[in-house]
Amino acid sequence: MIRWETDRPYAIAVGLMSGTSLDGIDAAVVRIEGSGLASRVSLLHFESRPYDDALRERLKALCDPASSDVASICGMNAYLGELFADAAAAAVREAGLSLDEIDFVSSHGQTIWHMPDAPPADPYLVRSTLQIGDLSVLAKRTGRPAVGDFRPADLAVGGQGAPLVPYGDLILFGHPAKGRILQNIGGIGNCTVLPPGAGLQDVMAFDTGPGNMVIDQTVQTLSGGKLSYDEGGAWAAQGTPDEALVSELMSHPYFRQPPPKSTGRELFGAAYASAFLARAAERGLAPADIVATATAFTAHSIADACRRFAMPHSRIDELIVSGGGAHNRTLMAMLAALLPEQAVLQAGAFGVPEDAKEAVIFALLGHAFLLGNCNNVPAATGASAPTVMGKLALP
Amino acid sequence: MIRWETDRPYAIAVGLMSGTSLDGIDAAVVRIEGSGLASRVSLLHFESRPYDDALRERLKALCDPASSDVASICGMNAYLGELFADAAAAAVREAGLSLDEIDFVSSHGQTIWHMPDAPPADPYLVRSTLQIGDLSVLAKRTGRPAVGDFRPADLAVGGQGAPLVPYGDLILFGHPAKGRILQNIGGIGNCTVLPPGAGLQDVMAFDTGPGNMVIDQTVQTLSGGKLSYDEGGAWAAQGTPDEALVSELMSHPYFRQPPPKSTGRELFGAAYASAFLARAAERGLAPADIVATATAFTAHSIADACRRFAMPHSRIDELIVSGGGAHNRTLMAMLAALLPEQAVLQAGAFGVPEDAKEAVIFALLGHAFLLGNCNNVPAATGASAPTVMGKLALP
Repeated sequence: MIRWETDRPYAIAVGLMSGTSLDGIDAAVVRIEGSGLASRVSLLHFESRPYDDALRERLKALCDPASSDVASICGMNAYLGELFADAAAAAVREAGLSLDEIDFVSSHGQTIWHMPDAPPADPYLVRSTLQIGDLSVLAKRTGRPAVGDFRPADLAVGGQGAPLVPYGDLILFGHPAKGRILQNIGGIGNCTVLPPGAGLQDVMAFDTGPGNMVIDQTVQTLSGGKLSYDEGGAWAAQGTPDEALVSELMSHPYFRQPPPKSTGRELFGAAYASAFLARAAERGLAPADIVATATAFTAHSIADACRRFAMPHSRIDELIVSGGGAHNRTLMAMLAALLPEQAVLQAGAFGVPEDAKEAVIFALLGHAFLLGNCNNVPAATGASAPTVMGKLALP
Repeated sequence: MIRWETDRPYAIAVGLMSGTSLDGIDAAVVRIEGSGLASRVSLLHFESRPYDDALRERLKALCDPASSDVASICGMNAYLGELFADAAAAAVREAGLSLDEIDFVSSHGQTIWHMPDAPPADPYLVRSTLQIGDLSVLAKRTGRPAVGDFRPADLAVGGQGAPLVPYGDLILFGHPAKGRILQNIGGIGNCTVLPPGAGLQDVMAFDTGPGNMVIDQTVQTLSGGKLSYDEGGAWAAQGTPDEALVSELMSHPYFRQPPPKSTGRELFGAAYASAFLARAAERGLAPADIVATATAFTAHSIADACRRFAMPHSRIDELIVSGGGAHNRTLMAMLAALLPEQAVLQAGAFGVPEDAKEAVIFALLGHAFLLGNCNNVPAATGASAPTVMGKLALP
């Protein structure tokens, strides 16, 4: 049996998150008291380090079978390990702490492929997921134990390897009397449904579809690369969504598929965005209308998921939004209009700044690993059983 | 602090090795008493499972930047995790044990890229190494903690990530009064020098040069492809080495280069063997004399390394030979003649069958990880410091 020994009644940890949107690295320094679902977390410091454009392009190339290769993946795995360590060390410094006061670092890693269902034709392309950012590099550079690479364990027990945040959502946002949806809008949109007084077995979670992925790609293309995203939803606010085109987009079978389910760049990546732009051009839409349409598509996909899957499962009082999409005022207004009976709120109002939530949760997942606690949510991932996800490297 | 708790005074573990020759998976079930350099190992069972040809071809493709991609690497990482788990479970069964009697499984993984020195041109192609065969899959399938992926940690502290076996050579073959060289003769020859009473800091290890690589290629060419190697050294025994040509071959600068050093197909592969055959033809040698000359070349390169680098470092009493070359009686006799003051012995005589040695050593490396003991050999890898190599996944 592996036991984590500590001589103080709390842990101080760094949680690192780097999402499929390839924005960069989020680092949260947290203090955790208690354990398991009774953990109480306070955020000591949070910061984000964006990837530079050259790195982002290289990572995009790695996420594509046509432009990836073994040498580039091998090199980037170590390179990102260094970058994650730099981000952790900087966050600890900014928190006014030194690395030797940190119990552990816990890292999501950078997903470069996620294949929760095997293609039927190839016996070697089995269900799998690949996160890079080497944990040994992270542990040696920070001098602290490094936990990470959580998803393969859930896949190994039959789950989709996603979503992982519901475990933390329940700890941070579970409410005895209110039904809540935690809606994260990163590259992909994903939600956690927390019925009033829920335990782990009552939690439902799934990817709602595209988050900012299609909007960002649209903005980048229409601005000729000058803009990387629609800041505050300003561009979308100047246009009008083409509701017919939104309906057409909503006919994608992903939205009807019952949870648990997850998606990514494979379904809503560059190829999808190009097809959307071509379709918008056919319909003669102006640029602002195209951006508004992409934004409405994300809003509809989220509201549709709420009505179709969450509300039959539980009373829903609040939709609490986190991730970059929470800063898109046009998207938030569209969500409020589409869900008139729910309060649409920003996660930041609940004590954990919305940008920091995922990084905080990865610290909780690492904490659970070290305590030997199961940290997947079978009701969310479809796993056959609770299991301890993660890998550990020592300093 | 991470502590491994066990209620018995010994550990039973499975060590898994899958080498760059892509032969298959070696599995050793061992009992380990004591810890660190004072560990004592007994082998309970050993077996090898060859990869089938289709899998070997796919793995070869993954080892080549031109034919590898992110999806194939992602899938194969999980696929090999399953295969490693099958091999471990089968070995445990054959040892007459059940998996719940096993403390842990420790796996080298399948190396698909190893880049200990960064190419200068590309900032993202940093020093790195990539082993696949997912540890979470291995842990969940066997139901036992899985340790593995050792090499990145040594690279992270400045080492070449290789060789790793000297750690185990010291445990298995270190002697308080005798100086020993562990000479492995695979495709390439490599040695571990163990001075009498050596600690980790006294161990020297390096590649001696060609092992069977030039001999095998010579035999294949001269037999028109009928023979793949000189079984027992029978063909060489019928000829006489051309000592002048051996001297000429020994003038290669690799042999004068001081350790740590490593070599491979780049230096002593097919092109080298062709040049040797052309030179032998010029000198009018008969086939048996050519095979004898290639064999003498390997023998001289090993004896030369012993005299040039090992003997100034330590008294050497015994040269203990493992690998395929240990079965070449002509080569062994030549070594004995060239090193009259040393006993030239086969590794199998020391209790660990030579084919099982590497798998046994990977069990020892995993054991060290769980005890928090440093398990790299800086004097062999060039690392700046001793460190704990490995990663852990929980069942």
